[in-house]
Parts: sequence; C-alpha cells; structure tokens
Amino acid sequence: MTDAIALEDRTHFGVWAPVLTALDDDLNPDIERTVAHAVWLLESGCHGLGLFGTTGEANSFSVEERMEVLEGLLDAEIPTQRLIVGTGCCALTDTVRLTTHAVRLGCKSVLMLPPFYYKNLSDNALFESYREVIERVGEDGLRVVLYHFPQLSGVPITRGAVELLSDYYPEVIAGIKDSSGEWKTTSTWIADFPNLCVFPGSEVLLLRALRSGGAGCITATANVNPAAIRNVYDTWLNGSAEADAEQERITAVRQVIETRPMIPGLKCVVGHYAQDARWQRVRPPLAALHVDQGEELLAELAATGFRFSRAA
Amino acid sequence: MTDAIALEDRTHFGVWAPVLTALDDDLNPDIERTVAHAVWLLESGCHGLGLFGTTGEANSFSVEERMEVLEGLLDAEIPTQRLIVGTGCCALTDTVRLTTHAVRLGCKSVLMLPPFYYKNLSDNALFESYREVIERVGEDGLRVVLYHFPQLSGVPITRGAVELLSDYYPEVIAGIKDSSGEWKTTSTWIADFPNLCVFPGSEVLLLRALRSGGAGCITATANVNPAAIRNVYDTWLNGSAEADAEQERITAVRQVIETRPMIPGLKCVVGHYAQDARWQRVRPPLAALHVDQGEELLAELAATGFRFSRAA
Repeated sequence: MTDAIALEDRTHFGVWAPVLTALDDDLNPDIERTVAHAVWLLESGCHGLGLFGTTGEANSFSVEERMEVLEGLLDAEIPTQRLIVGTGCCALTDTVRLTTHAVRLGCKSVLMLPPFYYKNLSDNALFESYREVIERVGEDGLRVVLYHFPQLSGVPITRGAVELLSDYYPEVIAGIKDSSGEWKTTSTWIADFPNLCVFPGSEVLLLRALRSGGAGCITATANVNPAAIRNVYDTWLNGSAEADAEQERITAVRQVIETRPMIPGLKCVVGHYAQDARWQRVRPPLAALHVDQGEELLAELAATGFRFSRAA
Repeated sequence: MTDAIALEDRTHFGVWAPVLTALDDDLNPDIERTVAHAVWLLESGCHGLGLFGTTGEANSFSVEERMEVLEGLLDAEIPTQRLIVGTGCCALTDTVRLTTHAVRLGCKSVLMLPPFYYKNLSDNALFESYREVIERVGEDGLRVVLYHFPQLSGVPITRGAVELLSDYYPEVIAGIKDSSGEWKTTSTWIADFPNLCVFPGSEVLLLRALRSGGAGCITATANVNPAAIRNVYDTWLNGSAEADAEQERITAVRQVIETRPMIPGLKCVVGHYAQDARWQRVRPPLAALHVDQGEELLAELAATGFRFSRAA
C-alpha cells in the first residue's frame, strides 16, 4: 500500500535508527563521534535517524546537551527530513523548548514521550499534555510521532488519547512509535489508525508490520545492523520472495542482542567494530557490559553470520 | 529515642510539608503565592518544607524554574535549615546542577529521586548514579535524603543500594523518604538503617514511625493540615496519652483526601480556604478536580472536623 507513495514523500516510512550517543571522558555527549556514527548509519541504509530516543539515552541528558547534539548533526549537513527528534520530557517547559528548537532548525518531525513521572493518566490528561505542548510550540509544519513505551515510561499512550489528538490535530499527529514489543498492540494501532505511520520499536516485527500497513520500524538494533534491516524493507518493497529469509536473519541478530542490556550491548558492538573503546561509555543509571559479557555477545553475534558493514 | 536530641539539631526530624507550587495564568510557578503558602506552613507547625517533591509537581518544571522558586523562598528569608530541596531528575547533569545550586545557597539537605526513566536498576547502578552526582557536586555538608517512591518513579531504592551508599558516604547519606505507603517497608528501613532518618510519606504512619525510631513524616497532606499533624508529633514527644486519638483524627483527614487525585485535591482545599481559585491550577499531565469533585471533597473533609488553620 505504500508502494504508491514516492520515496521523497515518505519521511515517515522505512528503517530508522535511534542514534546511540557517543560520550567523552566526562560522560558528556561527544558530538563529533556521534555525528560520525549518524553519518555511517545513513550511508549504511537507514532511511532516517531518531535523535534522542531511549537508545540515545535521551532522558539522561539535559535540554541544553540535547540541543547541542542536534545542532552538531545539522552542522554536519545531515538533512533535516532524515531526522525525527526526541523531545518528550517530564516537564512541559522542557518539551516545549526542545520541540521549538528542533522545528525552528527545520526538523519538523519529533518523537514525543508523554510526561512520564505522574502515572495513570486518563485519555484526557494525555490529550491535554500534548495539546499544551503543540499550542505553545505554535509552529506550522510540526509533525508529532507519539511514543508508546509503557515498560520504561510507565505511561502508556491510550487509544482514546490518540483518537482525541488525531481528531483535534489531524495535520500534526503523524504517527506512533510502538515500543511495547507486542505484535497484538502494533497490529491494533495499524488497524485502528490507518492515517498514522505506525513504527514498531523492533525489527523483529518489521515484515509483519509492512505487510499489514505499518510504516517500517524505529529500532535500536539498526545502530549495528542497518544494512540488513534495510534489506528486509527493500525486498518487501520490491515484492521479492527473499523477504522472509532476510527477516529471519535480522531476527536472529536481534535475539542475541536482546539477551543483554540493550544500550550497553549496542555500544559494546559499535566500540568493537569501530575499534574505539570509548563507545562502551554510558551515562548512569546505565552501566557498561562487563568484559566477559561483551565477549560472549560478540561471539554469539558472529555465530549468526552478523556483519557490521555498509550496504553494498 | 529522639528525645535526647536538641531541637536545633533535628533538621531531619519532625513534620515536613512538600510545598504545593502555586501557578500563574501561564501555568508558570507563581513565586509570591508559593512563598506565602510556604511561610504559612512554617507558621502553622511544620518543622520544615520539602521544596519540589512529587507534591510540588517537581518533575513538571524545568531546572531553571525550580532554581527560581528556591531563590524566591530564600529571598523571603525562609531559613535554609528548614528546607529539603528536591533535586533528583532523570538527567545526571540536571540533578548535579540543581543540587549544586541548592547547596551553594546554603540548603545542604536535598531529597533525591534516582534517575527514573530506565528501569530495573541494580544495586550497583543505583549506587553509581548517586555516587556520580555526589562526586560532581563535591560540596562539603551535602546531606542526601534518598527518595523511595516506586509507584511513581518505577525505580525502587533497594536495600543493597542504601547499604553501599551508607558505607561509602556515611556523612552524606542522611535519610530515606519512603513513599511506598506500606508500613512493612517503612519499618524495615527503620530497623535496618538506624543511622538514617526515615520519613514515611504519609502521616497515617506518623505515630507508628515515631514509636519505632522513625524521624517523622514528609507528607503531602501537611499542606492543608499542618497544625494537627504537628500536634501528633508534639503529643508523642511529650509522652502524652493523647497521641493515639490525635493520630486517628489526622488519619481520617488523610483518608478523605486520598480518595481523590492527591495534588489537585490539595490545591482545591488550599484554594477554597485561601479564597483564591488560582490555587486550583496544576500543570499537565495533572488535571484540576471537577467542580463537583471538589465540593464533595470539601464536604467530606468538613465532616471529619477538619480545620484549615494555624497552630495555636
């Protein structure tokens, strides 16, 4: 069904990597190394990049730190339409500031967590939280991808809230990133909101999502396996019979990585293949993998036939 | 057991109110009205004030907003030793900035949530998170009250983490605010950590906590019922036989308030008695009580014999 949409119009389709954030000696964002990784991801097949999602340790950085990294990516001439910027914080004013900053720099698509400290939010409380941000930002062209990640945020995006928001802001509410990990949830979003771009948060669901009308995926593992994940998208798009076999391969890689803490594991893999041990660094509360954990991970990955390399 | 400690040394004992944050027309902190409420709370019997706890909608405000309100309280000459400043954010750098700001202004006691976006933190990850903050702040005299509120933070403070922290920083780790609401949890903290000041997060547990060696309570409801809660503390301290009857009265008030959303309910009560409807305002994601909810709450409160008034 997406075949009919020209590639240049599909800013919210495809394989998106939520970029890992490289850290310097003081555990501050290392903009140069983060930019280099981001460029590599785009060259390796990602349609686009999520900046400061969960994988980018978004909530472990201040508003100022997050703005500086975005500016660094744009200084490196990464195209704004290939970015979705994570901007959802607990504090209304932080979310407004980050969103305004991104949109004014030309990054009109943002990935927005709900405010996630207070729990048990009603449909209306979720609606009002997003409404207040959208009104305060007040910028034309803003496109919001709602971020459903109940396991970490503790604040699920509800069906009722999406209905309220989509009715009230049909031009603004662009999609849902569903990090629930459950196909039942993803497939329900796709079926219930045909006008929204629904991205599962794992490539394990990529082919199923695409075949059901989903938009692609925004997946942490794309930081290390971008070409192979993109390949599943392309084989699907081309109607190739290879798609299922390619999906099996990327699922196998994901399953190895998922058995360890995700973000430290991905940083371990990037550090290994980039031959740069600094990539192992994470900000508290995350902790780097132990050496033996990392070695096991790399060995198991190699056993799947995993290759850390660019698309042909 | 606390009888032996002179009042002036007991900065971490007694009845503490986590101050509600008054909001202006734009839902920004109204410093003048917040200060007036804070002064009233101290005049009405609170030993001290928690600034920017959960009740103060801490996480709904930016770092800058939080710093401005603290400066407003100090400009009004509220004594620094009667404040515990909430400083725990998701982002390491935000927590460091808020904590450094407070301590340099003379507020050496802080209430610190763990970083609360990433979940399932090990003892060591919690330890490292606090350690990194304490080392970066690097100010003598810092006193940290650990904030255990698993229902909202999703990140429990573990016994193992408290052991590690208390061993490593015996002068810094001063106490635990236990907002679990479970006596079993509170009593275990008290028994296991006799050198720490343990504050339950509800006055329902006040007398039990005091009799077991707890420090008092830091409780939202002290925003509307400070004199009566203080009275329980004083009757206990004086060894009066009235303590149990006084405890029953404050428990009855709490139970009425607890049946509605806590923060909007407290703001409704303050607004009613202060004859200032602006107090009803909350920042999203919280929502004000509906008019009929508020009227019911006020009627039920009145039926308990509740009086919104200063200590004699």
